[in-house]
Amino acid sequence: MVRVGIVGASGYTGAELARLLAGHEKVTITAATSRQYAGKALAEVFPNLRKRIDITCENLTTDELVERADFFFTAVPHKTAMDVVPQLLAAGKKVVDLSADFRIHDSTTYEEWYQKHTCPELLDQAVYGLPELYREQIRQTRLTANPGCYPTSVILALAPLLREEMIDPATLIVDSKSGTSGAGRAASVGTLFCEVADGFKPYKVGGTHRHIPEIEQELSIAAGQPVTISFTPHLLPLSRGILSTIYAALTDKGRETDLQALYERVYREEPFVRLLPSGTPPATQHVRGSNYCDLSLQKDRRTNRLIVMSAIDNIVKGASGQAIQNMNLMNGFPETEGLLGAPFFP
Amino acid sequence: MVRVGIVGASGYTGAELARLLAGHEKVTITAATSRQYAGKALAEVFPNLRKRIDITCENLTTDELVERADFFFTAVPHKTAMDVVPQLLAAGKKVVDLSADFRIHDSTTYEEWYQKHTCPELLDQAVYGLPELYREQIRQTRLTANPGCYPTSVILALAPLLREEMIDPATLIVDSKSGTSGAGRAASVGTLFCEVADGFKPYKVGGTHRHIPEIEQELSIAAGQPVTISFTPHLLPLSRGILSTIYAALTDKGRETDLQALYERVYREEPFVRLLPSGTPPATQHVRGSNYCDLSLQKDRRTNRLIVMSAIDNIVKGASGQAIQNMNLMNGFPETEGLLGAPFFP
Amino acid sequence: MVRVGIVGASGYTGAELARLLAGHEKVTITAATSRQYAGKALAEVFPNLRKRIDITCENLTTDELVERADFFFTAVPHKTAMDVVPQLLAAGKKVVDLSADFRIHDSTTYEEWYQKHTCPELLDQAVYGLPELYREQIRQTRLTANPGCYPTSVILALAPLLREEMIDPATLIVDSKSGTSGAGRAASVGTLFCEVADGFKPYKVGGTHRHIPEIEQELSIAAGQPVTISFTPHLLPLSRGILSTIYAALTDKGRETDLQALYERVYREEPFVRLLPSGTPPATQHVRGSNYCDLSLQKDRRTNRLIVMSAIDNIVKGASGQAIQNMNLMNGFPETEGLLGAPFFP
Amino acid sequence: MVRVGIVGASGYTGAELARLLAGHEKVTITAATSRQYAGKALAEVFPNLRKRIDITCENLTTDELVERADFFFTAVPHKTAMDVVPQLLAAGKKVVDLSADFRIHDSTTYEEWYQKHTCPELLDQAVYGLPELYREQIRQTRLTANPGCYPTSVILALAPLLREEMIDPATLIVDSKSGTSGAGRAASVGTLFCEVADGFKPYKVGGTHRHIPEIEQELSIAAGQPVTISFTPHLLPLSRGILSTIYAALTDKGRETDLQALYERVYREEPFVRLLPSGTPPATQHVRGSNYCDLSLQKDRRTNRLIVMSAIDNIVKGASGQAIQNMNLMNGFPETEGLLGAPFFP
Repeated sequence: MVRVGIVGASGYTGAELARLLAGHEKVTITAATSRQYAGKALAEVFPNLRKRIDITCENLTTDELVERADFFFTAVPHKTAMDVVPQLLAAGKKVVDLSADFRIHDSTTYEEWYQKHTCPELLDQAVYGLPELYREQIRQTRLTANPGCYPTSVILALAPLLREEMIDPATLIVDSKSGTSGAGRAASVGTLFCEVADGFKPYKVGGTHRHIPEIEQELSIAAGQPVTISFTPHLLPLSRGILSTIYAALTDKGRETDLQALYERVYREEPFVRLLPSGTPPATQHVRGSNYCDLSLQKDRRTNRLIVMSAIDNIVKGASGQAIQNMNLMNGFPETEGLLGAPFFP
Repeated sequence: MVRVGIVGASGYTGAELARLLAGHEKVTITAATSRQYAGKALAEVFPNLRKRIDITCENLTTDELVERADFFFTAVPHKTAMDVVPQLLAAGKKVVDLSADFRIHDSTTYEEWYQKHTCPELLDQAVYGLPELYREQIRQTRLTANPGCYPTSVILALAPLLREEMIDPATLIVDSKSGTSGAGRAASVGTLFCEVADGFKPYKVGGTHRHIPEIEQELSIAAGQPVTISFTPHLLPLSRGILSTIYAALTDKGRETDLQALYERVYREEPFVRLLPSGTPPATQHVRGSNYCDLSLQKDRRTNRLIVMSAIDNIVKGASGQAIQNMNLMNGFPETEGLLGAPFFP
Repeated sequence: MVRVGIVGASGYTGAELARLLAGHEKVTITAATSRQYAGKALAEVFPNLRKRIDITCENLTTDELVERADFFFTAVPHKTAMDVVPQLLAAGKKVVDLSADFRIHDSTTYEEWYQKHTCPELLDQAVYGLPELYREQIRQTRLTANPGCYPTSVILALAPLLREEMIDPATLIVDSKSGTSGAGRAASVGTLFCEVADGFKPYKVGGTHRHIPEIEQELSIAAGQPVTISFTPHLLPLSRGILSTIYAALTDKGRETDLQALYERVYREEPFVRLLPSGTPPATQHVRGSNYCDLSLQKDRRTNRLIVMSAIDNIVKGASGQAIQNMNLMNGFPETEGLLGAPFFP
Repeated sequence: MVRVGIVGASGYTGAELARLLAGHEKVTITAATSRQYAGKALAEVFPNLRKRIDITCENLTTDELVERADFFFTAVPHKTAMDVVPQLLAAGKKVVDLSADFRIHDSTTYEEWYQKHTCPELLDQAVYGLPELYREQIRQTRLTANPGCYPTSVILALAPLLREEMIDPATLIVDSKSGTSGAGRAASVGTLFCEVADGFKPYKVGGTHRHIPEIEQELSIAAGQPVTISFTPHLLPLSRGILSTIYAALTDKGRETDLQALYERVYREEPFVRLLPSGTPPATQHVRGSNYCDLSLQKDRRTNRLIVMSAIDNIVKGASGQAIQNMNLMNGFPETEGLLGAPFFP
């Protein structure tokens, strides 16, 4: 059994790592840190975990941490991650970092959207942890930068189309909708039940959301040219789920190609991508609690545009599930280990 | 007091007409038809109306109907409306029709998206009931075609921009999200609580929703040229509310113009349009239960696109409230009579 | 127009007072206090109020307050109310206090459940603001203690039965369920959307909720003897609404009496109590947004118990609506002024 | 691998059986019947099951069924079960029946609450499938009557207390609240999203719900005397979850006993019962998707009553999960096989 540590166990992604790892046969959680809940059982903080997870939250120094586990998930805010990850790596550990700190290859871009980067030298070593794109590199690395939730839903939807020049990269419009767990577990008026329930709204409109550079980085690589997108996130009155509706003008090639067949080819072997039959849109309730990304393509003949839709559970494939998928790859475990729980519906 | 009849009182729009008319000082409901609930008090079908509405559902012929009221709301499905409305008009009555049957000016277009039109001669007389665009014509007509819910949210958002050539009409992408009351009150598996709750999904993707010709008709008039849009509706896990997020490329003129100031000018006197301050997106929970349409504009400098957002309550401004606004105009009542209830939040 | 001040305008009950007063024809809001949002328009804090409420939140001393209005709603936490109310009364103002500070007649009981009472001499002057029980006293008083939300739902359900000795007061079990707005608008983890949505739980189990002494006070008065109840509150995943399910053993008299007829007699003239037909349980969605209390009675012949059910909107009849009903009585306005908006459904 | 057939696969309990069995290592689904969806892949009816379940719904006769599997779940309505189960047993198969048809030992009682029983001779053979009470008998039987959802939540909460005479059986009041999946997947107005969302209500009040005889049967056995309860079910605006709040007068013995210690003793070895620490109420969101029953006890010293609270997921421990637990016992599999997925939260 590989000993695994969760740094930042008391947020929703930390709790979801614990929930999923409870069913993982190759690892055991040996450390779970939380400043706020130090001394409390994790199953007391998240009572759903009772009888399944038996670990106590602790406030540990990095020196203490490295004694306690061989593999680490850092589920802490960006900036905090930059402080912890280098020390874990220096101690010879492997890390999946769930923050944004190692996702952006270009430190200038990172600093434009976030803040000063304190260990830019690590950016080259970090692999962007989308297994469908970088499986082999993830197997080799000691530092995987786990993708953001919105980027996962968008990049899986678009990369093959851009690679094959089926759509015009200058026309990409991404309208994404996320469940509220994406906002985290900090107390705030804006995410109170009464503020969110029975309502719906956009936020960070006009090209300001921090997931934009990450999405554009990967789409640019796929397209082989710089890609700029319009991206509007929205807040859904539900806990789990992201649905992205993406619009692009078809190229001549795209117009003539059977894109459904293309996607069947690309994703046939992927354990966690489900291409839906043409004409069947995805729904967040059908991926809930699972590591699946459901994709659907629809041409609009009236406007010569393609609509690509993707649905994920933002805290599974969009965070903790994908992190475990990456851990599996980094340790030579079966890629699907611990991740085959079927989505729950209703 | 004007005697008002509701034809089709037992759907959600019928019930909402009754709820709003309960507080209207110039009219009284004297007829409410329902085949299914004939003989039952409307307040038994919709217990929220107890003590406020004291009328019994009846199954009435049109001949009986015309004896009972002077003004009619026809809240029946398209096709059924075509059967009833001509007779009501022939009897000298005024009508606000909430179906799609009289919204499309061109019968060929209507027949392409719906079915054979049985009284195309009435299409010329019908006024499209968006008071912000056609107030004077509505005052004069005896037949108002009450706009669809999605069209209301889209046309109010875009018409001034198209009129002034601020955006390129070839680039319009409309991503709309609607609450479940829009699907009506018929028993069906797809709108069961367990199917909709805690989930989100697109439907009728790829240019197939029947509100498209209606939206395009009005946007084309505003633009002075034929407009074709990409339109994707989605189903929200809430009862009331539509939010449309609309993308358009700015023209040179649009880029240089203070669009916020333009919209302030256009909508300043409108009682039911609320232009939000720049940077403040609308939210369905802030228009809930009211006749308001909240609008917000945001330029995206990175992509040179404009994002226009609008929020309405789909069964008030998107149906019954707007119908009453039209009735007020057609009868010379104050336009806001019965419609000033503030949105309820939370 | 009577000038009205809202002390504590930025909580949910403050906002609801503003929403309802926007449609009140006899008063105008001339002061709205909020420490946190001082300088902000109330309609910016609660965007649903845009175009309906045009007042700015201020941080005012009591001296400043008394200059600004003639009638006050104090919608502040208990203990804070004790500081403000005496000064408002001393300045000759009338007050409806929405806190718990003046509801308990006996200061010892108050101090047992809350804390030291700093103006016990006012307890005698305060009238318990349940118009259905104390209408005449409310008309005469300058200080009305607006009832708690749970107590309103329970006392209206039980008082006539206890008065007439139809049920055994030693057997009362009150199982109540409340929407989340009852928890207020302060940022806290426990009322985040993700913690509450899609879930249900009891809280303060075992006779510890502070509404117990208030309920017992009024039931004891009705019964003419000390009454002790079992009371369990629960948190519902919805914003507005309280439903109480109450169990009591029938007395011989109760068994033989037509209790439906009794309640029809008692509540026939009450504008805001709706007795449902026998066999029809109430539902929170049918009182939503309104000042109604829906009641239903059901005998269980198998166990010789009576089940009484009541539904209210906790921030209308359970707080702000009832406060306005009390204000109407205290000012000689029609009792229903501003409160006749029908419940919204769906 | 044992071949398993699901009779009635297209309801929510059928789909949940499939979801859970997808992760079961000892069985494989070889038949799934549905009249309505015959010819459709089950994963098309329930798209959450894509890539996890690869079986097509069929309309099979019982003769065909018995060829196809060795073990059966009958997830059909009561009365239909009586038609199918005898033939499956006659063919030598083992059956877990999820309907009510074999739960009531006394055919007279059954016929009083349901309808004529067509195979009363099987009632003696059927074991009531609550493993915590009847584990050994379930291991031996070929027909297990899977308990109802409400009964599971109530019997686990009360049986040990009644067995040990800690509470007075004449004083039992059971206030239960259920998610909407309990109403099944048939199209009906009453369970439409708009009717249920954002609302709460009791139903079948006054001793009329058909789970009453089943609960009373088991509580009577535990108490060693006939027990009659007051039972009120309520409909929650969520899909999964039952929470029962139960009130009982303590006996002298109960008053003096450490009931927490008693329950720790009784349930310590139970894999699916989690006794919460004193003072911690259960919450449906903490058992969601899992086979756990969370229990909590609280004495109310003011009234000398005990409040027992239990939470389950109504379609897991309340239906399909418990059915699999029973199948595991009947086949000598580890009892927890396929059932250890941790509850998902949020």
